[in-house]
Formats: sequence, C-alpha cells, structure tokens
Amino acid sequence: MTRATAAQSGACIEALAARFGGRMTTALPVRQEHAGGEGGAESTPPDAVLFPRSIEDISAALALCNDHRMPVIPFGAGTSLEGQLDAVRGGVSLDLSGMNRVLDIHGDDFDCRVEAGVTREQLNHELRHSGLFFPIDPGANATLGGMAATAASGTNAVRYGTMREACLGVTAVLSDGRVFHTGSRARKSACGYDLTRLLVGSEGTLAVIAELQLRLAPIPEAIVAIVAQFPTLAAAVQAVVLLMQAGLRPARIELLDELQMSASIAYSRLERLAATPTLFIEVHGPPAIVAEEKAQVTAVAVALGATVQTAERPEARNLLWKARHDAYWAARALMPGGGSIVTDACVPLSKLEDSILAARREADAGGLTCPIVGHVGDGNFHMLILFDADHERQRAAAAALARRIGERAIACGGTCTGEHGVGLHKRALLARQHGTAIPVLAAIKHALDPFGILNPGKTLPEAARQP
Amino acid sequence: MTRATAAQSGACIEALAARFGGRMTTALPVRQEHAGGEGGAESTPPDAVLFPRSIEDISAALALCNDHRMPVIPFGAGTSLEGQLDAVRGGVSLDLSGMNRVLDIHGDDFDCRVEAGVTREQLNHELRHSGLFFPIDPGANATLGGMAATAASGTNAVRYGTMREACLGVTAVLSDGRVFHTGSRARKSACGYDLTRLLVGSEGTLAVIAELQLRLAPIPEAIVAIVAQFPTLAAAVQAVVLLMQAGLRPARIELLDELQMSASIAYSRLERLAATPTLFIEVHGPPAIVAEEKAQVTAVAVALGATVQTAERPEARNLLWKARHDAYWAARALMPGGGSIVTDACVPLSKLEDSILAARREADAGGLTCPIVGHVGDGNFHMLILFDADHERQRAAAAALARRIGERAIACGGTCTGEHGVGLHKRALLARQHGTAIPVLAAIKHALDPFGILNPGKTLPEAARQP
Repeated sequence: MTRATAAQSGACIEALAARFGGRMTTALPVRQEHAGGEGGAESTPPDAVLFPRSIEDISAALALCNDHRMPVIPFGAGTSLEGQLDAVRGGVSLDLSGMNRVLDIHGDDFDCRVEAGVTREQLNHELRHSGLFFPIDPGANATLGGMAATAASGTNAVRYGTMREACLGVTAVLSDGRVFHTGSRARKSACGYDLTRLLVGSEGTLAVIAELQLRLAPIPEAIVAIVAQFPTLAAAVQAVVLLMQAGLRPARIELLDELQMSASIAYSRLERLAATPTLFIEVHGPPAIVAEEKAQVTAVAVALGATVQTAERPEARNLLWKARHDAYWAARALMPGGGSIVTDACVPLSKLEDSILAARREADAGGLTCPIVGHVGDGNFHMLILFDADHERQRAAAAALARRIGERAIACGGTCTGEHGVGLHKRALLARQHGTAIPVLAAIKHALDPFGILNPGKTLPEAARQP
Repeated sequence: MTRATAAQSGACIEALAARFGGRMTTALPVRQEHAGGEGGAESTPPDAVLFPRSIEDISAALALCNDHRMPVIPFGAGTSLEGQLDAVRGGVSLDLSGMNRVLDIHGDDFDCRVEAGVTREQLNHELRHSGLFFPIDPGANATLGGMAATAASGTNAVRYGTMREACLGVTAVLSDGRVFHTGSRARKSACGYDLTRLLVGSEGTLAVIAELQLRLAPIPEAIVAIVAQFPTLAAAVQAVVLLMQAGLRPARIELLDELQMSASIAYSRLERLAATPTLFIEVHGPPAIVAEEKAQVTAVAVALGATVQTAERPEARNLLWKARHDAYWAARALMPGGGSIVTDACVPLSKLEDSILAARREADAGGLTCPIVGHVGDGNFHMLILFDADHERQRAAAAALARRIGERAIACGGTCTGEHGVGLHKRALLARQHGTAIPVLAAIKHALDPFGILNPGKTLPEAARQP
C-alpha cells in the first residue's frame, strides 16, 4: 500500500482544484472536521476535502486520485466509531453529504433509491406521507451510504434486519473511476456474485457507494412499547431467549443494565423506572396481533420475576426511545470529561449471559465504570468503558478490557463487531476472527483496488494488504 | 479460461487415482449420472468422478487439479436446473454427497453446522426432536451445499428468507486447496468483507463449499394453510400486495394459475378445488396470532372476490403442500414426453401482475402450453414452457419466450433468476442485467481462481472471463 509522495499529492490536489474549483478545499478547519468520526482519540486530517455533486464527480475524482496514487476516504456524516475516517496515509476526504437527493420512492414495492449522502432521518422525513419507513436505526443520524459501508444496524434489526438486508443494490465507483451497478429491485436474486453484500461492510475500501436502492417497511398499524424490569441480569437475558424461541417477532429488544438504568433515570428523568436490569421491547403489527404479542411478552417477563409497564401512546413511547437513544450521553455523564471506548461484541444467544457477566466482572475488578446496553435480540451488546483520559494506566486498562471482550466474543463463536465495523481499531481482532480468510479478503481488495487508494489502512490487517 | 490438455487431464486423473483409489472413477455410467442436473437438454459428462470424505480430501483434490489446470465441478444431489453441472470443458465432478454429517445442533441459538452433502430433508429429519426446523424449501431434496451455491429459496422465503439469510458462515476451499472459514455464529457481523454472501450464489466458481453454519427456525406452535381461489389472476396478485402492505408475515404465499390448477387437480386429486387462479398461503406462529392472521388473510381475499378454505390438521395441510411440490410433475403431465423450460423471473411486486399477464399472452399467442406457479410474496414466478422436443420450431419458440420473460424482468427492475441461478443457460441474461458489473465479477473470479479451474463456463459470460 503506497502513500502518495509529496509531489504526487501536490500534483493531485492541483489537478482536483482545476476540475472542482471551490468544491475542493485544503483549509485546515475543514480538514480537521473530516478527520475523526465519533471514535474519540486523536486522528490525522486529510490533505484536502472534496464535495462531489454527482456520480460523474466521484468518478472523475477517483480517476485522478488513482493516477496520482492518492488515498481517498469516503465521508458521510462523520459518525463512525472505529476510526474509519482517520487519514492515516493522508489523501482526499470525499464528503458525500451534498449528494442528498431521494431519487425515487416506490410505495407499492416498499423500496426507494437515494444518493449516498441522504441521512436516515431525512429519508424518514421524506417518507412521512407514504405509509412507509426506513427501519434501520443505529441511533446516530448517519448517512445511508455510511451506514451501508459499515454494515450498520441498531435497535430494529431483530425484526427488520441490518443494512445487509436493507440494501437491494447500489451504484458504486471503482478506484479507477469506473461506475457499476449491483443488485436489482427484486426482493431476491440468484444472478451472479452478490456484489451488494460484498460492498456492505467494506468501509470504503473496495469502491465508493454513490447511490443505494433500499428496502422499506410499511409503518405498522399498531406499536406498543413494553418495559420489563428484572431482578437479575440473568433473568432479563433468559427472557430474551424464551421470546425468540416462542417464534415472536418483536421489532426491538433492548437491554440496559443496572448501571445504565441508573444513569438513564438521572439523565432522561425516567422517574417511574427502577435501576434494575431492564428490557425495552417494542412490538409492531396489526392491532390484534400486537395485543396478543404484548400479552405473550408480558407473560414471559412476569414468569421470570419482572415488573412490566407498557406504553401505547406515541408520546410515552417516544420518551422511552429517546431515553434509549440518549443512553450513550447518559452514560458519558457518569464521568464528565472522561474518555470512553464502546465495545461491540455480538455472540450466539446462548452465550450472551456469560459474555455480559464476564465483561461486568472484569470491569468491576479493574475498578472501571462500565454501563451496558444491548440489542440483545441479536446477541449484540455494547459495554461503554469510561476512563480518566489523563490517567495512562486507566486508559491502558480500558483498552485491554475492550480487546478481551472482543476476543471472548470470537472464542465463543461470535464476532468482535456486530455493527460498528473494523476501521482502524479492530484490525487485530479481525485477524484473530478471520485468520484463514485474510488472504481471500486481501485478494479481493487487490483485485478491485490495485493501487490501494481506497481508505488505506482500514479493515484489513497491516500484513494482509500486499498479496 | 484454459482447458486441460489430454496429457494434463490424463496425468491429473492418474495422480487423483493414486491419492484416492476406489473413491475416484472414470466409469461412463457414473460420469453420465453426474453430467446433467434436472435442466433437461443434452450435457457433457465429466472425465472422472471423485467422492471426497473430508475437507482434507477436497483440499488435496483441488490442489492436484489446480496444478494440472483440470476443471472441477462441485456436485451435490444433481437437482440444479440451469446446466450448472455440465462438464463443458471436461474435468472432475466432485461429488460431495458422501460428506453428509450433521456436525452439531445448537438448539438455544437456532443454528447448526453441517457438511455440504447433507440434504435438507435429512437435516429436517435429524432436527425432528429439537423443536427446530430448516425453513428453506426449494421443493427438490437438494444438498445444503448445492442450495448455498445456487442461492436457493422456495416457498418459505417470504417469511424465513433465502440461503443468503440462512447461511451464517461456511468452510470453503480455494482452487489451490487452501481452506478458509467465513462468518460466525452471531446473528449479524460487521467484521470485514461478507465472504459468506459472496460464496452464496457463486455456483462453485469461486470456491468449493465444504461445511455450512446454518440458521434454523423454531417450529411454529400453530400452522394454518389457507387456499384462496380468485375470479381473476389480477385479483390474486392484488391480494398478495395488500397482505404484504398490511405488515402480515405469512410463511408462504404461492400462486397457481388456472392452467396449473387444472393440471394439479387432475394429478393430485384436489377435487374440492376449482381450476381458477389460486393462492396457497400458510401462516405460522403462536395460536392466537395465527388465528388473527388467518382472519385478516381471509378478509383481504374475500374482499377481492375469492372463495376461501382453510386446512389446520397436518394431514390436510400436507396434502396441499404435496400438491404444490408436485406442481412441476402435474404440469409435465400436460404434455407427456415433451421438453420443458422453467423460467425464474423475480420482479418488484408492483410489476408482478403485468409480468405474469405479458408472459401468459405471449405463451398463448405462440400456441405453447405454459402453466404458472409463483412464490408471489417475493415477486418470483415460474412459467413452465412445455414443447414438443422433436419439433424444432416449438423448441426455438420456447427458448425465445423464456429469454423474453427474463429480459422483461430485467427491464422492469427485476432479475432474470430469483432462485435457480445462472449456470450455463442464463449467462447472456446476466450480462444484460449486470452489464457494468461484469468487470468486477471477472476481477473477483480471477483473484480467487487464477487458472479458472472452478466450474468453468458457468455464471460469467464468455467474454468476461479473461480480465
């Protein structure tokens, strides 16, 4: 993986300036805005930021950068968590946020086509009169291109799937500027290699996603939120397994542990709730079916010792889900000004209880403050490891704990990242998880991006990138 | 794409014989059994058939074949429909049917690991006391490796997904014999390129799938089958769209048109049904939810003029689904001894009515006998084009009709193959559907199989295979 020389980099920026004029900048404040993402830690800004307005712009920019061996880092809303945007080898940040048109909506077919810079909130706003919604909800108001690139999911995945299922196809641009289309508007296809799923989760390292064909869902006729508060974490997790085994299809099953509940009660003023392990559940569907599912969920939770409240009115539900979305900020408020690492282990359901309890034990033993939230219907949980950023030993202990949570997830058949991606920070864990497949990943990377200009240093372990 | 010279081929077979002894044969009857699949038409047998018993066997065989530039054609149950097994360049058929162990079943996690030669009926038999089942049901008793290779789906896909969703990971072998693992047992992952989905649907052209980690589903507490008979085809299809829009999640929604119903009534003795456009629907879940869904499905169908019968007892349901599975043979009985082509278009739901009616009009205009069945919840329909195999003009007309059905599906945003794959017969349609992506497909093929030994002549259009 070459780095552009200073001369190549300078020539490339000159060529880009000639082509794009004011839509490219080397101003430091703009470059710094495009350096990081939400992953914390210091990160390197790109050499320039370019604002394409069309597929042709992306294609022209890539062809020029490829000629000059100049790295290109696709940028959406800057909400990634694993250093995906860090310009570790310099290069051009390709800011797609200006490509934000919803191109068409097919109500009868539950699909739409959007430019990569459309955010999920914008899409749902544009869908508001259609009876449809876009169900993937990672919390952050990310762009849909960015969500595809990191294989995002979030609270609704247990019923509606992740970006892998939501993406029917994309229009993407290769490192040399060639444009290609994948997928179709059909709900399934057996026509050739599944390039759509190959690009979902590739973190901008194989091609730049310019447009997406997305699957939508009908807005359910009825929605009920259920809050079940359990005496123990074990009971809460057992309830999840029983609900899934019963063949129920809740839209969301979110766990908040004692510590997180205590933080959220304070931050989001959830006075009616107790600081015990809690499931936030939501069921979607026709009213009679929702009523029946609510009764079944309640019965399972009560049998495991839970106290149960339900919220049917939109205001009451929104309050709950706002609190769930604010869980991160509530947790950060436990240590104002502190550093944090979010883990992202995803394990088989039967391993969830052990995984969470082991993480909790280790956090407590290390004296770290670590609330837990989880998309537990999928076996995915996030421990937020808080630490004093000025305290080197605490920082090292936090990093070690995060690494061991990932390693334990891998050891029990799970994955070190359920939805945040690999980026810069999880490459060693990827190597551990996919040891034998690394040469295959590297061969594909090399086949599609022979000069390694696309988001270099990300996803693939260092050793794997020159096959 | 090279073909092994006679000398290379002879040397390779000698080397394989030395390694595998009686587990390799060049006997013509065995080779002929491995030539075809169910796609009809004449096809070339392989030069030899090899029966591996382990991943090490597959690895050794591939390494030898790669050294000799000898084509390798993975073989499961021989039920593919698009010429995937035709040894167009000679080579070795790798018959995986002896690798038929269910390696483990994780009841709590709804997953299992199997060798590639396990068939779906065998798996469901082994699961019979577990409370779980494997929901993907293409009709034929295919092997699970073969089903993954062709991205199979079938009647249950509308609720349970296709092989893309069912495969959590695989163990596969590269053309040079290297073994690698993909995926994990977690329900989702954002850890690196999605090699699992890349191999699903790759028809043995990228790697040989040796083992699969599969997602299972809990056996629903209650199952009800609903038969709705409509006055017109249009009304039947409209009912499907309304059901999907209402957010219902039936397990199956199968269409049989008038001609197919008339064939099936005769073949399967469905005396209580009429020869009108019919939906076979099945709903799965807890009893109260199933009762509610049954009521809603019935209401929608009746509002569109349907007469509705339900079947709740297993015997009555099995009779119906046996008839649905036998639809192909019932239809073939309309022209005993005749040839047939099965089309596999899959289109956006809003295009389904037009697509089916256009196919029907064209079939009628050409004087061809063409019953239709469809997994209409997915927008997928099969027209079975029957023709007199000795009548050259009829054969040509049948082929032209099949091609135009595929072309029309592509033109309206769909795919020429929803679940049968590309194989030998749909390569021109693939080129039309994925024009701009062909160089990307070819680059990946070349990166993973540089000598082109894996199922040569399949999936990729001829022109694309030498990048």
